[in-house]
Amino acid sequence: MAQQSIEDTIVAPATAPGQAAIAVIRLSGKAAISICNACFRGKNLESVAPNTIHFGTIRDGEVIVDEVLVSLFKGPHSYTGEDTVEVSCHGSMFIQQQVLQLFIRHGARSAAPGEFTMRAFLNGKLDLSQAEAVADLIASDSKAAHQIAMHQMRGGFSAEISKLREELIHFASMIELELDFSEEDVEFANRDELKALLLKTHKVAQGLIDSFQVGNVIKNGIPVVIAGKPNAGKSTLLNALLNEERALVSDIAGTTRDTIEDELNLNGVIFRFIDTAGLRDTDDTVEAMGVARTLEKVKQAAVVAYVFDVNELSGSALQAEVEKLQLEMEGSDAQLLLLANKIDAQELSALKEEYSHFPNLIFISAKERQNIEQLTSTLLQLVKIGDIGLQDTIVSNTRHHEALTNANTALMRAYDSLNTGITGDFIAMDIRQSLHYLGEITGEISPDDLLGNIFSKFCIGK
Amino acid sequence: MAQQSIEDTIVAPATAPGQAAIAVIRLSGKAAISICNACFRGKNLESVAPNTIHFGTIRDGEVIVDEVLVSLFKGPHSYTGEDTVEVSCHGSMFIQQQVLQLFIRHGARSAAPGEFTMRAFLNGKLDLSQAEAVADLIASDSKAAHQIAMHQMRGGFSAEISKLREELIHFASMIELELDFSEEDVEFANRDELKALLLKTHKVAQGLIDSFQVGNVIKNGIPVVIAGKPNAGKSTLLNALLNEERALVSDIAGTTRDTIEDELNLNGVIFRFIDTAGLRDTDDTVEAMGVARTLEKVKQAAVVAYVFDVNELSGSALQAEVEKLQLEMEGSDAQLLLLANKIDAQELSALKEEYSHFPNLIFISAKERQNIEQLTSTLLQLVKIGDIGLQDTIVSNTRHHEALTNANTALMRAYDSLNTGITGDFIAMDIRQSLHYLGEITGEISPDDLLGNIFSKFCIGK
Repeated sequence: MAQQSIEDTIVAPATAPGQAAIAVIRLSGKAAISICNACFRGKNLESVAPNTIHFGTIRDGEVIVDEVLVSLFKGPHSYTGEDTVEVSCHGSMFIQQQVLQLFIRHGARSAAPGEFTMRAFLNGKLDLSQAEAVADLIASDSKAAHQIAMHQMRGGFSAEISKLREELIHFASMIELELDFSEEDVEFANRDELKALLLKTHKVAQGLIDSFQVGNVIKNGIPVVIAGKPNAGKSTLLNALLNEERALVSDIAGTTRDTIEDELNLNGVIFRFIDTAGLRDTDDTVEAMGVARTLEKVKQAAVVAYVFDVNELSGSALQAEVEKLQLEMEGSDAQLLLLANKIDAQELSALKEEYSHFPNLIFISAKERQNIEQLTSTLLQLVKIGDIGLQDTIVSNTRHHEALTNANTALMRAYDSLNTGITGDFIAMDIRQSLHYLGEITGEISPDDLLGNIFSKFCIGK
Repeated sequence: MAQQSIEDTIVAPATAPGQAAIAVIRLSGKAAISICNACFRGKNLESVAPNTIHFGTIRDGEVIVDEVLVSLFKGPHSYTGEDTVEVSCHGSMFIQQQVLQLFIRHGARSAAPGEFTMRAFLNGKLDLSQAEAVADLIASDSKAAHQIAMHQMRGGFSAEISKLREELIHFASMIELELDFSEEDVEFANRDELKALLLKTHKVAQGLIDSFQVGNVIKNGIPVVIAGKPNAGKSTLLNALLNEERALVSDIAGTTRDTIEDELNLNGVIFRFIDTAGLRDTDDTVEAMGVARTLEKVKQAAVVAYVFDVNELSGSALQAEVEKLQLEMEGSDAQLLLLANKIDAQELSALKEEYSHFPNLIFISAKERQNIEQLTSTLLQLVKIGDIGLQDTIVSNTRHHEALTNANTALMRAYDSLNTGITGDFIAMDIRQSLHYLGEITGEISPDDLLGNIFSKFCIGK
């Protein structure tokens, strides 16, 4: 995003496009109230109290564009921190276009993506990680993703980062004090205490870094590869899962032609089920490519659910299949879950004995929808995502993860320097670098290109 | 729509679905404020002034669902005439669902389509034709459709109907006065004056009825069939038109496989261009079906634009084609427009001579986009839609057209009765019937099923 002047008054629709009862068009900036007032017939908006709503008409000359409600906010008590007007008009795309163009003719300019939130950041209404949480909140489509974004938007994550920074600033000040008196060769700080402080800070940062594994899958969905021989019942299982939960189903064409992804919301967590072409030895080149793609998917999976037909695979045959799978899963963190399908025609006690030595094995009938609930609860256990508490800080943003990792690396360098007796100025430099990376998260350090990069991913109007 | 209790508090999203900066959820009814207040942490909404906006959080127990702005309106000074709360939340579908479900758990019920506007009607905030205009306004996608709907929503049409009703009530009262004194055989009203009054009223009603022809095409788009032999340049012409005007283009699959409709906004009027399979004599059955469909389209068209290649069709050959077309257009009101295409390779003066005796003929080059502007202005002239004035009342609703037609038929019966000396009670009955039909338009007469039928076509949330 080309950085445009913050002196401009910006305008954009704030609600989703499409026909609806109402649509909201938002103006923000120095001239927001005067621009709207010039097109408004009703009360004089220049003289009304903030946080009030006014009925009137938007007019283009004498032509009535719409009957509207105008909500008026005065900076700094607004989302952006600037004077802001929200025009609630009828939800016709034609009317929205007319109102937008009218405001632009009266001096406003179309807002760039995320420009309202960027102004909120620049005006100190939100720090950078809070601003980023706004976009995550809007995109949240599950309870877990919603809670992480809400916690972050309300400053929970920022508070953790602040704590880390405070510890480090305390540490840095002691080291730098020593440097000031370096000629006298004094040690103001006990080296062991310093090391303990560094280790403690490192541990807190590492906890946040580790939470990214959960945060990332919550944000992007937990990939579950459904593997198995043809006719083992993979598709029937997917349908059973989808039906069972009556979730919002969206068919996303996979990156490859043979993998289809279905998203499914289980207890507030999004799972991405990836149906595969089937795993089998083959000499056929095209089929081999399909299998290669399946293996690719297995590597990215959090869980590999291997479906088999209990009428087809004995315990020993299953053992052979599992061993093959485990070979293919080598180097991946995926958990293996065995789904013994088509139990409807069989005696369950005999089956239990047949497969007794396999851990993580569930008996199901995809067709009859038997034990599907047990399957979903097992999936949730396997990925270790319980109910996320309101107070838990979970990193879900790749940029934050990267910054935390860089900060922690610098911390460890400082720790090593302390251990090897390297001079204080090097240690101080590492601590400063660590502080720099942490500052990037909340935006104390925010180069223009970073801001542009972050806010250009927002939707228009936010 | 099953008529549901007006005592309920109703809730629905008021903005279009989809991810956006914000979404608005609207509550209306006796408990609107208390239901929202029960889920809101911020100011006590029960004690704030109307038409004010309040920041706070919507909470489900201790879980923060969102940070929101709440706008508060008190009946009768609201859209519905009832207490109304609009919650402006982040535009995530997940959050909207959570807020909706929360309000429903606290006693609100999902609004039926159009139920907010129906309440506005039942509470006397709008008459029925104004309420219908709200839906038209939301659906309006052109300047002309927008102006008709706006005029109607602001009561312009209702005022015309009121005038008609007043005249008729005056007339009916004179007739009924005579009936009261019928034994005395007096005539309070001069029969010639009565006839003149009836004729005048009839003429005004007829003017409104006639305006429907324009109103209907403005609302639904003016159908222009593009006909011509294969390779005459029909598709190139369509592309030229679309490009020229940079209109909102939507490809709508036609009712038949071989006709494609393109909508194009020319000077604020929507034209529906219908490309056809081509008109030609054929023995092939499938092709004959295509031609039959084309003829079907020709019958519904306002304009038939016949495109031909000046390099292929001489003046006399064109004459033969035009005569065939005119046969096919018999019984239709469509206007014929001849488009002499591919003039780029030809001397224009020679062409002008060749085709000099054809009216409504325009020389164009679809490929080079020559004279496309002349074509569009000719189209606008042919359909006789100039700039619609703000004060013009144009009937665009089929229901209104029907009611006006019925009212006028009853009027004419009364007029005939006056001429043939039929007794006053019959005349009075016809006048009452005419008044009944007019009353249906504005909703003075509004059977439940009529209301259900009208409002069920609205979108949810309006």
